[in-house]
Amino acid sequence: MADTCKTSIGIDFGGTSVKLGVCRGDELLVTDEPIPTANFNGPAALITEMAARVAKLREKYPDICAIGVGVPGLVDFDHGLVHVLTNVPGWKHIPLKTILGEKTGLPVLVENDANAMVYAEFRHGAARGLKNVVGLTVGTGIGGGLVLDGKMYRGSGFAAGEVGQMSIHFDGKPGNYGNLGALEKYTGNQQITEHAQLRYSEAGIKRDLSECTPKHLADAAQAGDEIAQQIWNEVADWLGTAIASTAWLLNPDAFVIGGGVAQAGDIIFAPLKRKVQSMLSTVVWERLQILPARFSNEAGIIGNAALAADAV
Amino acid sequence: MADTCKTSIGIDFGGTSVKLGVCRGDELLVTDEPIPTANFNGPAALITEMAARVAKLREKYPDICAIGVGVPGLVDFDHGLVHVLTNVPGWKHIPLKTILGEKTGLPVLVENDANAMVYAEFRHGAARGLKNVVGLTVGTGIGGGLVLDGKMYRGSGFAAGEVGQMSIHFDGKPGNYGNLGALEKYTGNQQITEHAQLRYSEAGIKRDLSECTPKHLADAAQAGDEIAQQIWNEVADWLGTAIASTAWLLNPDAFVIGGGVAQAGDIIFAPLKRKVQSMLSTVVWERLQILPARFSNEAGIIGNAALAADAV
Repeated sequence: MADTCKTSIGIDFGGTSVKLGVCRGDELLVTDEPIPTANFNGPAALITEMAARVAKLREKYPDICAIGVGVPGLVDFDHGLVHVLTNVPGWKHIPLKTILGEKTGLPVLVENDANAMVYAEFRHGAARGLKNVVGLTVGTGIGGGLVLDGKMYRGSGFAAGEVGQMSIHFDGKPGNYGNLGALEKYTGNQQITEHAQLRYSEAGIKRDLSECTPKHLADAAQAGDEIAQQIWNEVADWLGTAIASTAWLLNPDAFVIGGGVAQAGDIIFAPLKRKVQSMLSTVVWERLQILPARFSNEAGIIGNAALAADAV
Repeated sequence: MADTCKTSIGIDFGGTSVKLGVCRGDELLVTDEPIPTANFNGPAALITEMAARVAKLREKYPDICAIGVGVPGLVDFDHGLVHVLTNVPGWKHIPLKTILGEKTGLPVLVENDANAMVYAEFRHGAARGLKNVVGLTVGTGIGGGLVLDGKMYRGSGFAAGEVGQMSIHFDGKPGNYGNLGALEKYTGNQQITEHAQLRYSEAGIKRDLSECTPKHLADAAQAGDEIAQQIWNEVADWLGTAIASTAWLLNPDAFVIGGGVAQAGDIIFAPLKRKVQSMLSTVVWERLQILPARFSNEAGIIGNAALAADAV
């Protein structure tokens, strides 16, 4: 954080579109029209379009001094190489940092999107000013990222932070890697929805899956539906178990939780905090905050822009 | 690791005795006669004795330039304050760093003993040259420490690394803090012993608890006892679940495992490696080593001496 680069571009590379924005400190100055990935035949054409957008943004903001790109997949951070993007055809072993750097003449940083999310919260969001922060996005799957001792912690293969793959039951439901008890097989959107349908059915109530989404369950719990409240308690037990284990391991200042499930607000945060407290020592609990994320859709742009600016 | 201080004293403060040694780099030059804690009436007298021992060691090794003390309890690392030692009467809120520093005129570092263990392995032992290392001591309880990005990671309240308190079952056996499924309630010495007695009993074999210790089970498994082998597989499943969760979170280079249970050698390491591999992605697994600790009784002295020398 040398503070020599103040204005940077954040690029949030999603499964269907690429979003760009210009940030200065904690200000998001402008967001550009998203680029639909399907309109471009492979990485070369898409990167050329990114570079064209960057050139245009620099006309308006000539002090732009770095570009941060977050991608939904595994990257080699040191080399800015995208290993593979599962949901974007043709993206395999793409030296994004090198190509985009050559096309723009700017320093480029390539990061995993979950890391960008926690960095946004750490630098400019809910966890601003804290030192050790765990970021979680609880939605379709569960992504995570770690800021430790004030810096992004990436791990030996740049794959750290996978809270969703942690086990909450040594003989539980298998995750995508054969990992028994994988958290995201309990508290992913789809899993919560299916579990809710089952709980209603056990109570003699027939519900379509489409009526059992986290959004529906939050509204129902808010309106006093005891089954829905019970389901949120169960979700809190599962999620809280993984959070408590992570807290025992890292003794962090905060967990920052975003994504669809977090939008249930106090319906999930209240039982979650109770559960986590019940699992920790005073020393670990008294330092700990469990916070809703400040940023949502713009987290990627802000986090990547901040990572890039801080690296210059 | 400025390399300006090469010779330092490591002090390993245990429940019954205090051990001292002088280290130069990875060499343990000498160990001193242990000081029995019971012989000293409270912290002041014991610290005075430590200072006297230090003075004597400096006569022989005048280039000693730092002291590292590891204690079996929670410390405030920044202030070198011992919060409380459960097993040593009178040790509560003792400013050990200040007192010992004043008595000796040397820089003093006070650390938790589990942290010293992993630092010894990271600097001079099984994990030498690696960057991200998780140390585990599997014995009566399960202690742990983390070296991340080449530095001791302590957490916001200096309480990080408590792998033994992580949950392996969201509805499992409660740990010492009410934490359901706490690993050490499955794979601590006593728990393994009791579990083994049960397994033998289920097979119609009566065994005293004293015949079911990890040591006995290792010998039995080695000799072909299938029940004992099965018990080690179960221990590997439990321990492996917590190790895999930690690996998903931290993507480290290595776990270094010491303590009594680790002395079972391949009897535990072989099924443990299989279990952990079965729970991880290729990216996380291919970077990972699961290693027996190099040091045992001397780990505390070596680790504390190294921490102190590196901090100067």
